[in-house]
Amino acid sequence: MDLTQADKDAVSARHKDAAARMDQLRGRNLSLDMTRGKPSPEQLDLADDLLTCVTHGETKSEDGTDLRNYGGLAGIPEARRLFAAFLGTEPDRVIVGGNSSLTMMWDVLANAMSFGMPDGDGPWRDQAPKFICPVPGYDRHFAICERLGIEMINVEMTPDGPDLDAVRALVAEDASVKGIWCVPKYSNPSGETYTDETVEALASMPAAAKDFRIMWDNAYAVHHLGNGPASLSDILTACEKAGNDNRAIVFGSTSKITHAGAGVAVMASSPDNVKDHLDKIFYAMIGPDKINQMRHVRFFKDMNGILEHMKKHAELVAPKFAAVDEALEKALGGTGLATWTKPEGGYFVSVDVLDGCAKKIIKRCADAGVKITPAGATYPYGKDPHDRNIRIAPTLPSVDEIKVAMTVLTAAIEEVCTEKLLES
Amino acid sequence: MDLTQADKDAVSARHKDAAARMDQLRGRNLSLDMTRGKPSPEQLDLADDLLTCVTHGETKSEDGTDLRNYGGLAGIPEARRLFAAFLGTEPDRVIVGGNSSLTMMWDVLANAMSFGMPDGDGPWRDQAPKFICPVPGYDRHFAICERLGIEMINVEMTPDGPDLDAVRALVAEDASVKGIWCVPKYSNPSGETYTDETVEALASMPAAAKDFRIMWDNAYAVHHLGNGPASLSDILTACEKAGNDNRAIVFGSTSKITHAGAGVAVMASSPDNVKDHLDKIFYAMIGPDKINQMRHVRFFKDMNGILEHMKKHAELVAPKFAAVDEALEKALGGTGLATWTKPEGGYFVSVDVLDGCAKKIIKRCADAGVKITPAGATYPYGKDPHDRNIRIAPTLPSVDEIKVAMTVLTAAIEEVCTEKLLES
Repeated sequence: MDLTQADKDAVSARHKDAAARMDQLRGRNLSLDMTRGKPSPEQLDLADDLLTCVTHGETKSEDGTDLRNYGGLAGIPEARRLFAAFLGTEPDRVIVGGNSSLTMMWDVLANAMSFGMPDGDGPWRDQAPKFICPVPGYDRHFAICERLGIEMINVEMTPDGPDLDAVRALVAEDASVKGIWCVPKYSNPSGETYTDETVEALASMPAAAKDFRIMWDNAYAVHHLGNGPASLSDILTACEKAGNDNRAIVFGSTSKITHAGAGVAVMASSPDNVKDHLDKIFYAMIGPDKINQMRHVRFFKDMNGILEHMKKHAELVAPKFAAVDEALEKALGGTGLATWTKPEGGYFVSVDVLDGCAKKIIKRCADAGVKITPAGATYPYGKDPHDRNIRIAPTLPSVDEIKVAMTVLTAAIEEVCTEKLLES
Repeated sequence: MDLTQADKDAVSARHKDAAARMDQLRGRNLSLDMTRGKPSPEQLDLADDLLTCVTHGETKSEDGTDLRNYGGLAGIPEARRLFAAFLGTEPDRVIVGGNSSLTMMWDVLANAMSFGMPDGDGPWRDQAPKFICPVPGYDRHFAICERLGIEMINVEMTPDGPDLDAVRALVAEDASVKGIWCVPKYSNPSGETYTDETVEALASMPAAAKDFRIMWDNAYAVHHLGNGPASLSDILTACEKAGNDNRAIVFGSTSKITHAGAGVAVMASSPDNVKDHLDKIFYAMIGPDKINQMRHVRFFKDMNGILEHMKKHAELVAPKFAAVDEALEKALGGTGLATWTKPEGGYFVSVDVLDGCAKKIIKRCADAGVKITPAGATYPYGKDPHDRNIRIAPTLPSVDEIKVAMTVLTAAIEEVCTEKLLES
């Protein structure tokens, strides 16, 4: 029954029922956490051979470098080759770093603020920089901008990627719009994969800022849920074809492929941008952990090794996403109280409830012992203008824990949303 | 014979002799590198058990954290405890990071430029900041300041540490003097260890800048050459006693203890500074490589394990320093052409030749196939005002290579310095 169209008695009955269930659930002293986009221990187990795959006497690179010693700012050749295949580009356009792609993104933007970017007019901090943020999006991207004083402009996500008309207008007209955040495949949190047309448009659209940058965080490049990774066109090639060689910077990591805290982060871009970045990070380091890079090369061998490995992740993760979807469908299907994504990959399910209800729902879940990502976290400045988006992270808990947590979340959605309907 | 006091004929004879030797050496097509303060492969071998000391099923921290997953910005508890002993402080004052203390130092100063420091008046970049640089010193420290636009002021090193009268005057009078670089033990490159009086004076001297900071890079804390590490008083305690709790930030790493590129970096300071730093790096990372931290904990077990390990380094390194000293003594002892350090630890021998000769000497060595660290590298902006300091890095080459390289270097010193005497 579509409760948004139903009469007050029907809504009231549903509200009482949901409130009673919440009462009972609060009595169970639950303690569940659905907030963290972290891999589960079982996923981490899959990569434990990393721990032992580089041992005594195996610490030379193919070019003779002693992996144990200083140096190698851009990464070891075999890792640059492996991750070039991963990112769909050439090894000399790849920088293989430490354990965090977030660090690479911070380094790019913090250095742009202080020192500028190729093609530009010096430090961004002197130019009142703005960034386009497709919403909902990744809180850590937004935190970087907020911290650095880069003003954020919301643009709505569509099933094809960010709303292109809005993006085009902002980028063409305002030279202080210096970039856009993109999670182009299985977008965080709403799961969309950008279409070929979207990629082409972003690469070729006119930009008032000569140093406009696409921060292309391909965090879920190979993180599908069953049918093989979705296809995504290559932004670097698209930019080059459009004559905007320096526009895109691509990021990735093995954090959600091998060990989340001990993986390898990578970035790729044009020769100019690669040189510029290496020149910038020179001041902050001698080189990355080359032994850990070699562990990854030995563990995967090649791109096919990565793809085969990700099938094992999909086997572990898909049933968890299915449990979330089943619970939502069973409790909320056809009610009109919420819509949600059915992602084919990535780490999140995104739920939109009735406007003005997300904060209350998350509070009620917390009262019943179930932690849900704070409302607003998926928006710049932590402000969801509609107070409606809820992010569910199903990978870390077990299927049984998810089922219990979803019982709480769906009851809270029913309770709060019917309350709202009764008030109006 | 003291050639600076000798008659022209004696100097001329020595010059001819040295020039003839250089001629002959140029014909040998040597290719030797004395520039890099890197450990030798044999030193790196000492730590190869690191590679296998954390294996399957051993990836939990004592507090139950899965070391493989995200998180733990300050480092794992057992590593904070180990390195607290290493740095002579309490675990909650220690941050254990990634593989590079240079990154930690960059992060401290880059963030101070953009966001300021506890006790201060906001971003340093708005305050025309200056830093005191004891000279000669470490090129990478100076590069950070130059890059960030922090003006550097040279202060001469003395056998007890930096010239305290000069430091005191600068710090007391000029509120834009925001800090000082210190390598307090076996100073890079000149080998001095700061006396207790120097440490106490630096900790307690009046400072015009409320957020004056001592960047205490204790890079060679346990890197002695035979007689056990020199004693150095604890700057953090000294600062606390003087009521300047937030003044000093201590850095260290295992880069020259275990594997140079795959070690663990650490910093320690007051509770305020630790909180401030964690708040700042939150934007740039989720957490360090906790597995590599655990490798170091398992490998060393405790501070005594580190000290025992360093005895093995000393056995490998001491003969190399001895070879440098013997060569210098044999060729230049009593000539007045050069003075040099006889360090009890660290990674360098520092040679002072006659004023105006360092650049030429290094050029002549290069012509004969021996790379010596560029003249001026040990001074801010790459400018040695006397053009006299030469840094020798003996750890990486073999003793035989050092002997050959020193034959070239000493001949070049004799040739160029006698030339200068003949011109004057």
